Amino acid sequence: MSLNSFGHVFRVTTWGESHGPGLGAVIDGCPPGVALDEGWIQPFMDRRRPGTSKNTTQRQEADRVRIMSGVFEGRTTGTPIMLMIENTDQRSKDYGEIATAFRPGHADITYHQKYGIRDYRGGGRSSARETAARVAAGAVAQAVLREMVPELRVIGYMVQMGEMRLERANFDETAISENPFFLPDAAAAAAWEDYLTGIRKAQNSVGAAVELLIRGCPPGLGAPVYGKLDTDLAAAMMSINAVKGVEIGEGMAAAALTGTANADEIRMGAGGPEYLSNHAGGILGGISTGQEILVRFAVKPTSSILTPRRTVNAAGEEIELITKGRHDPCVGIRAVPVAEAVAACVVLDHLLLDRAQTGGHRGQIG
Amino acid sequence: MSLNSFGHVFRVTTWGESHGPGLGAVIDGCPPGVALDEGWIQPFMDRRRPGTSKNTTQRQEADRVRIMSGVFEGRTTGTPIMLMIENTDQRSKDYGEIATAFRPGHADITYHQKYGIRDYRGGGRSSARETAARVAAGAVAQAVLREMVPELRVIGYMVQMGEMRLERANFDETAISENPFFLPDAAAAAAWEDYLTGIRKAQNSVGAAVELLIRGCPPGLGAPVYGKLDTDLAAAMMSINAVKGVEIGEGMAAAALTGTANADEIRMGAGGPEYLSNHAGGILGGISTGQEILVRFAVKPTSSILTPRRTVNAAGEEIELITKGRHDPCVGIRAVPVAEAVAACVVLDHLLLDRAQTGGHRGQIG
Amino acid sequence: MSLNSFGHVFRVTTWGESHGPGLGAVIDGCPPGVALDEGWIQPFMDRRRPGTSKNTTQRQEADRVRIMSGVFEGRTTGTPIMLMIENTDQRSKDYGEIATAFRPGHADITYHQKYGIRDYRGGGRSSARETAARVAAGAVAQAVLREMVPELRVIGYMVQMGEMRLERANFDETAISENPFFLPDAAAAAAWEDYLTGIRKAQNSVGAAVELLIRGCPPGLGAPVYGKLDTDLAAAMMSINAVKGVEIGEGMAAAALTGTANADEIRMGAGGPEYLSNHAGGILGGISTGQEILVRFAVKPTSSILTPRRTVNAAGEEIELITKGRHDPCVGIRAVPVAEAVAACVVLDHLLLDRAQTGGHRGQIG
Amino acid sequence: MSLNSFGHVFRVTTWGESHGPGLGAVIDGCPPGVALDEGWIQPFMDRRRPGTSKNTTQRQEADRVRIMSGVFEGRTTGTPIMLMIENTDQRSKDYGEIATAFRPGHADITYHQKYGIRDYRGGGRSSARETAARVAAGAVAQAVLREMVPELRVIGYMVQMGEMRLERANFDETAISENPFFLPDAAAAAAWEDYLTGIRKAQNSVGAAVELLIRGCPPGLGAPVYGKLDTDLAAAMMSINAVKGVEIGEGMAAAALTGTANADEIRMGAGGPEYLSNHAGGILGGISTGQEILVRFAVKPTSSILTPRRTVNAAGEEIELITKGRHDPCVGIRAVPVAEAVAACVVLDHLLLDRAQTGGHRGQIG
Repeated sequence: MSLNSFGHVFRVTTWGESHGPGLGAVIDGCPPGVALDEGWIQPFMDRRRPGTSKNTTQRQEADRVRIMSGVFEGRTTGTPIMLMIENTDQRSKDYGEIATAFRPGHADITYHQKYGIRDYRGGGRSSARETAARVAAGAVAQAVLREMVPELRVIGYMVQMGEMRLERANFDETAISENPFFLPDAAAAAAWEDYLTGIRKAQNSVGAAVELLIRGCPPGLGAPVYGKLDTDLAAAMMSINAVKGVEIGEGMAAAALTGTANADEIRMGAGGPEYLSNHAGGILGGISTGQEILVRFAVKPTSSILTPRRTVNAAGEEIELITKGRHDPCVGIRAVPVAEAVAACVVLDHLLLDRAQTGGHRGQIG
Repeated sequence: MSLNSFGHVFRVTTWGESHGPGLGAVIDGCPPGVALDEGWIQPFMDRRRPGTSKNTTQRQEADRVRIMSGVFEGRTTGTPIMLMIENTDQRSKDYGEIATAFRPGHADITYHQKYGIRDYRGGGRSSARETAARVAAGAVAQAVLREMVPELRVIGYMVQMGEMRLERANFDETAISENPFFLPDAAAAAAWEDYLTGIRKAQNSVGAAVELLIRGCPPGLGAPVYGKLDTDLAAAMMSINAVKGVEIGEGMAAAALTGTANADEIRMGAGGPEYLSNHAGGILGGISTGQEILVRFAVKPTSSILTPRRTVNAAGEEIELITKGRHDPCVGIRAVPVAEAVAACVVLDHLLLDRAQTGGHRGQIG
Repeated sequence: MSLNSFGHVFRVTTWGESHGPGLGAVIDGCPPGVALDEGWIQPFMDRRRPGTSKNTTQRQEADRVRIMSGVFEGRTTGTPIMLMIENTDQRSKDYGEIATAFRPGHADITYHQKYGIRDYRGGGRSSARETAARVAAGAVAQAVLREMVPELRVIGYMVQMGEMRLERANFDETAISENPFFLPDAAAAAAWEDYLTGIRKAQNSVGAAVELLIRGCPPGLGAPVYGKLDTDLAAAMMSINAVKGVEIGEGMAAAALTGTANADEIRMGAGGPEYLSNHAGGILGGISTGQEILVRFAVKPTSSILTPRRTVNAAGEEIELITKGRHDPCVGIRAVPVAEAVAACVVLDHLLLDRAQTGGHRGQIG
Repeated sequence: MSLNSFGHVFRVTTWGESHGPGLGAVIDGCPPGVALDEGWIQPFMDRRRPGTSKNTTQRQEADRVRIMSGVFEGRTTGTPIMLMIENTDQRSKDYGEIATAFRPGHADITYHQKYGIRDYRGGGRSSARETAARVAAGAVAQAVLREMVPELRVIGYMVQMGEMRLERANFDETAISENPFFLPDAAAAAAWEDYLTGIRKAQNSVGAAVELLIRGCPPGLGAPVYGKLDTDLAAAMMSINAVKGVEIGEGMAAAALTGTANADEIRMGAGGPEYLSNHAGGILGGISTGQEILVRFAVKPTSSILTPRRTVNAAGEEIELITKGRHDPCVGIRAVPVAEAVAACVVLDHLLLDRAQTGGHRGQIG
């Protein structure tokens, strides 16, 4: 993982700013011969797209992805795949105060301090818009995984939004795609909607927690001691804008557990070892066990809000700042497809890396 | 970050198994001319060393570090520094069942599945002993930081051990080094001792949470969008054995916050911008703000316990397993100096990386 | 250096095929605040552009570079710079035989064997057209070098084209830009022209040797033992299409020298050490000496020729193949600006890498 | 390739100085389950070892390699393999002048200028002794290749030493191991011996050219456009001490060839395509063709000679310098096993990298 790239073999580099001519991703190391076209990618983009409800920013972005290279006659060629999304909704506007003022809780000030210059239009590189490129890259990873590990599924959903929490007992996977919150509980969606409307009307924003469940991941992916699957998953999540915490399996709750409680006991099943529980979240010693992989992360509330906050500007003047414009009251909603995308990239990358080192051969049990 | 290396410029590669001839680290990219000798490194090792109390494994390891290269006449030369720790306490013993059985919650089974072979002696590469090499590398990072950023401090301490939690109001930094739990609350140490004794007597183990506070880190370190300082810190923590969750600033609690509550408002102080709070944990947009950096992580309980657990062995037989031997009832205690070490490496690495790209120049405010 | 990226800190990734929608480069790690616009880049592109004489392919390519990201109000921001060149001259044509036949000496067959699929249009990724992206990236490197080391110059010129060789005694740097061969000998250009016309009329092609002279490079760049400046320069040259050999200083001729002859003796000059000769080509132990850096490389003749050659096709049939279309009789000519570009990238990358590790401080002499 | 590491998947990091406690290599990413012990490695070391004849330095080095990690019960485990060679012949001596004087043509001065400090004992990190670690790593690569591609052979030999050149017509592979020059011409060895004796008696040294022939390499290894097999081979050769030029196939001579002469025509053989010539040296478009791979490189003469040379010292004084001590009159001889070693590493690395991306599947012909 370097500045704007991640992945060992399936390597993704993103580029672009919120209000420049466009943004995108270059994927290097993609296996050749995989069926891929823009039609496959677009539905992934549409899930992330803002403007689909009043709970996400009202900015209308087509987010149309164009494959610029690396695909020939509908198949990947093994050469770099460049995916480009042009910024069509670049409203000409007066950025006025934003150009020199620093929103509290936003990257404005650190970009200024580090680089001495920043593209302040729409947050520039720090905009959540950068994640569109990741979603496009994730769609390519999913196309490869579909051929290499057809049973693998990366399923993301919200588990918390401010005071609202998923009632685990109501978990219903089929509900996820049926409401604007990626919420696996159809009945609760209305309450979440009301809650968020309240937040929005109060000129406020709110944090969120998202969970990923990766099904069908073969055992053996990941490598000690720094190329662990959980290390790379955690890094991928933490690299998403506004993410402040990442958990695998029990996560932070592991601090409270005893060894007897935490042990995922094992019995033999028809197809090999079967675990009686999954405190580990499907990863032991940095390597996948073959169980479901469970990743959870928290997204802080959007820092661009209409409620005035005290801050300073580049001239060193103390000011009060209101951030006008089109901003998500809960940026965590859109983090769901983004997290699915980067998780797909990480899993595929480790699948290829494992194939490199071990040939994908597995030590037998029984 | 690749399989057994981490860092962009200050790059650390560790090698070695628990019961092989030795283990160590190679550091590439270290600045030249920095004062360094074995005497500087040893106290860092001693803090991590087991055998210092009955709460850590009784295995007696000298953990004596030898500088094998990269230092000449007491100063770093800019060439690779190899730090070696010989394994002196390699008891000849019958590993019997452990050689083929898989401890629940342990990397035994995934190493077997991935590689088809594993050094089962003491956990081999998956042993917490590998972290000794990280502590040695961290000591080198601290030697460089002492010269480049003398005011920088990396302070680790425990905040939770099973049911015991640090009472924040009692926080006393000076207490950390005065008790075997790295606990910043002298009065509470006795209760923690009793609690852990109970766990140990119950042939059990327990999880923990550790916090790092990095003081004196200059603003401007870290780089969007995958080379973020928090991304690399999270990856470094997650790569430590048994870590299941990582938080920056508010961490998972950010999911419950509103934007107004989460905003760290800014005023002008004598030396530049000053923040009225630190929900962000000292990092915005992946770049340090100059505030204290706050990292927290959870360590699961040791999976090697004396209480029998159901599992299988390589032959596919269902068994009950007791792990004899010298094991920490709370491996999270030793994670404190390990986390300090990898954090020091990450911060130094980003200091050098920032110097590479920006020359360390900073955009002014005021 | 990975599949389609090179550089440690100033990292260039190229993407794109000859006849796809476009091609380009993403530059990560560029210093911020550097003046850059499309007007600066274009003259570099124009030097590489084919169609400027009958000695290069008649394909008319505008090679217009568009800066898609990483630049704001005329200055680099430190975020990824994406440079895109759209392919405007994508003649619709029947590729017929070329789609399945393998040109001898061309990458057709190895792409087929490795990937099982290839974009055969114009050579796809293996086309010399990919080098346009490198030239664009090199222009950015030159913009940074202009600010960081204003006295640095990267000067490329041809020293051989088939039977024609530069007469060293006639070396005249000012002549380079005055003839279509980048030949530092104005008087000889006509003879080279006649020679190449003969080659072209004979439906043949011819190889070339190019030399780079890097002036004003400070001492201390490069790092033992695999990050040597000459290692990275050699790799950069060898990565250019059709390059078969690379030399530093004496190059292959060093095999014939004795130690007394090869030693570049040193005396003290006004500004520090001065060398009485430069057999080393300005690099000792992988690190620049401050002398002129001399790099030389050979380019094989274009494999796409009108003279029939025996080969096979994907069906395994033995055929005779003529390559119609617009091809350079001497692809080595265009290699001059390409080599300058990648050399500029390598030197800048090492300047930044050196700044990271040593802070750019230099051990004094005298 | 970074400072002291090379390889994408099979990644080698070397450490150590000539006269420190030892030196070695860490190999990360090695496939598991490969038979390996010190007995396999030692013969590779012995071929490189000086002191075997009067033509190489008289320093007696046991060069005994110890496997410190990554091997269990005679098989690689997939974890880092650390190979250590202790420096047993560290004569205590007065380095006097060498400590501050800069040998012309040696890295002394550039190390001083870059780092401001250097381990001057025996050349420190810039000593040819570092290559012992590469030979050890190469032996591990050969152990893996023996299992993965049993028919693959890496054969190195000298083709030039000053005025002496291999007569190609006399090429006899069996002779290589029968003379101290790795010369594939038994009859010529005596004349080479006399020639080198003359050089040595004249207190001089001499350059050399070495050729590598890699047989049995499957097609499809290497990847455009910067991860080319020839790019990585060239970089690996150029990273060897004193190497000044690298050629693939025709090498620099390609500059003189026409397209008709250079085309390696193809016919169908029993097992697939067969080439009628090999000007390309077995690599097209950066990818192996399945033919013999031919690499050639030049080594400059040892700069440490007994003949006085004019130079300066760190104080800026002009001096005349004689380098006493044990130095090879032709360091190119020992470069033969070193080059074989790094070539084996590069080929294996690309075999694994290709397996990662393509699964090793090959596009069929016929």
